[in-house]
Amino acid sequence: MPLPGRNRQVVLKSRPLGIPQAEHFELTSAPVPELGKGEFLVRNDFLSVDPAMRGWTNAAANYADPVGIGEVMRSFAAGEVIASRHPGYAEGDRVMGMLGWQEYAVTDGKPIRRKVREKDLSLSLSLGILGINGVTAYFALTEIGQPRPGDTVVVSTAAGAVGSAVGQIAKLAGCRTVGIAGGPQKVNSCIEDFDYDAAVDYKAANFTDTLAAACPKGVDIYYDNTSGPITDAVVRHVNKNARIVICGTASVASWEPWPTGPRIERHLLNKAVKMQGFLIWDYEHRYEEAVAKLAVWVRDGSLRYREDILDGLERAPDSIAGLYRGENSGKRLIKIRHA
Amino acid sequence: MPLPGRNRQVVLKSRPLGIPQAEHFELTSAPVPELGKGEFLVRNDFLSVDPAMRGWTNAAANYADPVGIGEVMRSFAAGEVIASRHPGYAEGDRVMGMLGWQEYAVTDGKPIRRKVREKDLSLSLSLGILGINGVTAYFALTEIGQPRPGDTVVVSTAAGAVGSAVGQIAKLAGCRTVGIAGGPQKVNSCIEDFDYDAAVDYKAANFTDTLAAACPKGVDIYYDNTSGPITDAVVRHVNKNARIVICGTASVASWEPWPTGPRIERHLLNKAVKMQGFLIWDYEHRYEEAVAKLAVWVRDGSLRYREDILDGLERAPDSIAGLYRGENSGKRLIKIRHA
Repeated sequence: MPLPGRNRQVVLKSRPLGIPQAEHFELTSAPVPELGKGEFLVRNDFLSVDPAMRGWTNAAANYADPVGIGEVMRSFAAGEVIASRHPGYAEGDRVMGMLGWQEYAVTDGKPIRRKVREKDLSLSLSLGILGINGVTAYFALTEIGQPRPGDTVVVSTAAGAVGSAVGQIAKLAGCRTVGIAGGPQKVNSCIEDFDYDAAVDYKAANFTDTLAAACPKGVDIYYDNTSGPITDAVVRHVNKNARIVICGTASVASWEPWPTGPRIERHLLNKAVKMQGFLIWDYEHRYEEAVAKLAVWVRDGSLRYREDILDGLERAPDSIAGLYRGENSGKRLIKIRHA
Repeated sequence: MPLPGRNRQVVLKSRPLGIPQAEHFELTSAPVPELGKGEFLVRNDFLSVDPAMRGWTNAAANYADPVGIGEVMRSFAAGEVIASRHPGYAEGDRVMGMLGWQEYAVTDGKPIRRKVREKDLSLSLSLGILGINGVTAYFALTEIGQPRPGDTVVVSTAAGAVGSAVGQIAKLAGCRTVGIAGGPQKVNSCIEDFDYDAAVDYKAANFTDTLAAACPKGVDIYYDNTSGPITDAVVRHVNKNARIVICGTASVASWEPWPTGPRIERHLLNKAVKMQGFLIWDYEHRYEEAVAKLAVWVRDGSLRYREDILDGLERAPDSIAGLYRGENSGKRLIKIRHA
């Protein structure tokens, strides 16, 4: 196959405060460099769009260094090796890793997270249900949440890429599942697509009442993807020895300076509640264990997923802002159309 | 021994909002009732004064039902069985349990927490270092905090009955310990009496700077007895995978309505921190395991304690308020002078 000459890329143009908008990015192109010894070339087929990417564009200290101005936007991507001078990677290998918002990536292998060996399944799944989203849902729920049959599990952004997996994995563990989502369409998706026992619309005026009614036995596990007022409402209902998994903070636009909210220490004490932040990096060594479990469930139809695939690199700059506008249904991806 | 005729008691006269003051209690007396079958009479020698008693006097839902108006104030107490019609308890047995602020208690045994078998040690210790305080420090630190050699452990109310035990147990586990206390006398006690590596005065103007300087490698475990601004200052310094043990909220006078403070969800997420409330009741079945460990350390001098013994039942009504004024040094007790 003739190697490509130009590589179209999306770079960070200026640093946003809070959520990055289309104007903070720029579409450019660069020549594809020659492969050095130990390097290989990946043709990206799918780019990932994740809420965490907001943090990567911000200057505030975070769990990853910020993306520099003028640098290709950091992102997960999945593609195929089309040329290789690396002994561990051959032409035709399918890989997933931190390859960035670009058509092609030359790499020494360090940003590669894994080879994608589920050849019967779409490569896009390695960025969603069989990727960070599914693996996060699996470990954060099972290791921090520790679901037991009969537990009531409440999930925020319940129809999202992580949330929808959490709800279904909790259901497979014998729990009663309550989803929180924004708007009738997503609430409906919770029930129809992801098998939640109940779903609550946080945008509805009667949200707190509906939530209480949906949790008649209180809340044993709260899987928090939002923080903010949604979390404040759920926390009131936690049972003794409840577990709160902090996996995302999507509802809070800016954390610098720290916003204020209700103090929860007394409540956590009175109920002996555990609240714990989850970072996937702490489970890197167990990644394949989760993928193997998830793939079984995907193949037998007990774990469903939705993808929200944007067509073409041009859609990338506005795609993170769109996530925060809540316009996606399912895991958001960008599909690259190669010339 | 002739049985007593009258039993002096301290009852809750009115319901406080927040911290109960002397005026909320009343000293009364009642006849000592005849023992029914299966009952026994305890002569209380020491009554306990604990921060948690604030919650027991408040109407707000809590982890124990509130004490009723006109009822004897609920408290732990330790004493000797002086008459018994119960097969499990004999005259001369030393017991500890929820026997209330009174000179004598007739009981069927249900409020008894344990028989005190450490005959070589003062009965008062069963209300402090070998009681709820020590057992709380032991399990909350080891089970939630999970100290590892080299960890930096910060303790608030560090010279108090629980905090001083936490600091020493952490030190025995190979940790570097930093105590937070109010005023030079308590700060000095942290170093002199309880072997902290550093101690910081939260009442000093330079508190946040001194705290930062005392934790050059950040904070791996924060053992929180205060909540409020002290906690807010410590939380800024937690390391990745830190553990925050919520054991008390002494610095916040009222929790109804919930006060506000900095939102910590993003910070807990970025650092994958665990924050967990500790209730001793969850460890009731393992109580003797902790007492046995603690008694070994007390006997060999590696676990020191201070007692703040108030002389006579008359001192009880103001004693909780005094705790919150910070006037005690060490575990506060009331010693009963029997006629």
